[in-house]
Amino acid sequence: SYLNGLQSVFISYVHTWSPFLCGSIKMPDFLRLQSLEQAKAILWQNLSDVRLNIENLETRQALGRVLAEDIISPEDSPAFNRSTVDGFAVRAADTYGVSDALPAYLKLVGEVNMGMETSLSLCGGEAALIHTGGMLPAGSDAVVMLEVTTRLATGEIEVYKGVAPHENVVLKGEDVRMGEVVFQRGRRVRAEEIAALLALGITCVNVYCQPRVSIFSSGDEVIPPGKTPSGGQVRDINSYALEALVKQHGGLPRTFPIVPDDPRQLEQAIREVLAESDLVIVTAGSSASERDMTAAVISRFGQPGVLVHGINVRPGKPTILAVCDGKPMIGLPGNPVSTLVIAHLFVTPLLHTLSGASDPLPTPAFQATLTVNLPSVAGRDDFIPIRLIRQGEQWLIDPIFFKSSLIFTLAKSDGLLHIPAHVTGYSAGDLVEVLIL
Amino acid sequence: SYLNGLQSVFISYVHTWSPFLCGSIKMPDFLRLQSLEQAKAILWQNLSDVRLNIENLETRQALGRVLAEDIISPEDSPAFNRSTVDGFAVRAADTYGVSDALPAYLKLVGEVNMGMETSLSLCGGEAALIHTGGMLPAGSDAVVMLEVTTRLATGEIEVYKGVAPHENVVLKGEDVRMGEVVFQRGRRVRAEEIAALLALGITCVNVYCQPRVSIFSSGDEVIPPGKTPSGGQVRDINSYALEALVKQHGGLPRTFPIVPDDPRQLEQAIREVLAESDLVIVTAGSSASERDMTAAVISRFGQPGVLVHGINVRPGKPTILAVCDGKPMIGLPGNPVSTLVIAHLFVTPLLHTLSGASDPLPTPAFQATLTVNLPSVAGRDDFIPIRLIRQGEQWLIDPIFFKSSLIFTLAKSDGLLHIPAHVTGYSAGDLVEVLIL
Repeated sequence: SYLNGLQSVFISYVHTWSPFLCGSIKMPDFLRLQSLEQAKAILWQNLSDVRLNIENLETRQALGRVLAEDIISPEDSPAFNRSTVDGFAVRAADTYGVSDALPAYLKLVGEVNMGMETSLSLCGGEAALIHTGGMLPAGSDAVVMLEVTTRLATGEIEVYKGVAPHENVVLKGEDVRMGEVVFQRGRRVRAEEIAALLALGITCVNVYCQPRVSIFSSGDEVIPPGKTPSGGQVRDINSYALEALVKQHGGLPRTFPIVPDDPRQLEQAIREVLAESDLVIVTAGSSASERDMTAAVISRFGQPGVLVHGINVRPGKPTILAVCDGKPMIGLPGNPVSTLVIAHLFVTPLLHTLSGASDPLPTPAFQATLTVNLPSVAGRDDFIPIRLIRQGEQWLIDPIFFKSSLIFTLAKSDGLLHIPAHVTGYSAGDLVEVLIL
Repeated sequence: SYLNGLQSVFISYVHTWSPFLCGSIKMPDFLRLQSLEQAKAILWQNLSDVRLNIENLETRQALGRVLAEDIISPEDSPAFNRSTVDGFAVRAADTYGVSDALPAYLKLVGEVNMGMETSLSLCGGEAALIHTGGMLPAGSDAVVMLEVTTRLATGEIEVYKGVAPHENVVLKGEDVRMGEVVFQRGRRVRAEEIAALLALGITCVNVYCQPRVSIFSSGDEVIPPGKTPSGGQVRDINSYALEALVKQHGGLPRTFPIVPDDPRQLEQAIREVLAESDLVIVTAGSSASERDMTAAVISRFGQPGVLVHGINVRPGKPTILAVCDGKPMIGLPGNPVSTLVIAHLFVTPLLHTLSGASDPLPTPAFQATLTVNLPSVAGRDDFIPIRLIRQGEQWLIDPIFFKSSLIFTLAKSDGLLHIPAHVTGYSAGDLVEVLIL
């Protein structure tokens, strides 16, 4: 259900991209717990006027980026009729009906050298030696494989097996035709796209800029991780966990000094970098008053402001989702397990959207067998850290008893088991889906 | 079966890591087609004397790296007994047996401020206001939640619901004990590990260096992608596809000018960078003589040399796998589809091994429904480019008719369908696994 929800919000997102559809924006709905599905839908509905920047990059540097333009092929590919085997270029008609008992005899008139336009031109009854990737000489329309021929001392070859026209050949333009739209805007660039673009000589492309993510940590009890906490203090770990997650998913993270529990200082700190941020994340202190402060500060940055304050999900209930003047802002719970689980659910897909991708592939879900019964409260989405244990051919799921303030209960896990809102628990032996971390 | 194979070679790899077990090295076995499983097993068996370098990094920069040391906690975490809710710190015994009708009355003696060692010390019958994350004052052993109390004008609180000792509290050392091994050598660093290490104040870690991968492209017909091919020439795209794949999987790729079809020049080019390479990849030209040249050159670099020359897999049959004096070397087929498929099967897991990971998680496999019958030759592993199509709740697989020289037949695909050697084909409607690209 996580995947399904993600897909549907994406589709609505893509369909409402136009700024003319902004009338569909939902108004803020404070302090009421939203379901996970609702929270996602509300956030994505409000992303329709987010602006994406574009830059021109060398194609070989574009890995992981998203195309900001349709790519039209400037040429036919391949550029010439090419052999797919080592053998002899021939006229197919010269080999019709041949067999071991009745071979064809063709005159060997030369060899096609690799990487050169061949001046050879075959007439009926002639053949030319050719290598895989070699250019078919004029007059030939197929290649017989080396294995079905014998070279004779007479300067002829015997052919024991006939070929059809175009057999063992890729034709000019067979992969791509000049003028064809080969990739559409919104497509993410993998190694495969880099190879394909370069095959057409497209050495630069327009791609969307990487989303710039400003990460703030606030709380009077929070100190930098290099310091030794005195009584009551805790080290800031959320900033750095988020920094890593943003990096991993193609964003450009920026962290800042810890902000004290003071609304004016938090507002000031955010305002200074707002113009250079595509997404703002605040991990509040853990107390209710600190979280309320975050929501109050975020709401000062524009319309529609705070959209969701509280999600019926465990861990991560006190999540704040906002869009202010076309800029998404997220307030994450102070507890590190909650912060990371919510970041996997919201920050990762947000980065995907902000990177310009229009065509998300499903997150590959891993299936494994549960070893114990897991009850769950109906109406709430639960995410439980789990270990995976290999047993013969199958993978077993060992749930970890966790507290949202104990980071090692998450760091020692391999993934998260999702118990959707409509499920009231799973039984030992159930095959269930795991989100691999 | 791909996954199973990968797992088992990893286990044997880890078990034979010691240089004392080098006696198990397999001798070169030229020109005989190996099965995919055999080829993997032979290559990994010969990696036991590969040396990995180590460097010290800031923890926050270690994302994706692999720990080169066991991590021992220098302290207890949390460092103090901490409240997990907003409420009142109390002695649990003072609340035993209370109810709405029979509340307990406790004297409010102060508030625990966030981030400070509290000087408060509770006696029997006393309580202190505390926030989530706050440090429990001396004398208290539990926290009652705000929601089950009323604050009275008398300076007292009424408590309507009892707590057990340690309820709503995480205890000093509950997450991690000082001296505990929290992560073992060989573990890959995710956002979660970064958070956990920083929680303990571990701001630097020893990790394995990124594998340095030297990528050579050879062939008289191959030209740089920025040039316009004249007759018979093709652009070099394999170097850049491999560069991207290596980058994506945590390696440090390095590409070089295209090498002509001349064994001495190829040998010379490799020899110049061998000392600074942890893996050498050569994508040969597409003809048989070019591939043979690659194998001959590779075999000059040490023992045991070429281990596999030809794999019973489609596409990618002419693959060369070698280990020379403790350094893996791979010769990839010149055709781009073959090159990329084989790179996904061998280069990606090799990078995982060379990055020091000892505990691979399974590659998440995606399951989808086949739309057509797909016959396959028994004894051969087939990998077929496919598109995924969303239909309601399920994903359908649409196989792409491909030729290994036509890069767009792969670039337009979402993943690869694996038909293992022991399967003679799949039928329309079968639920099968897809390797997402």
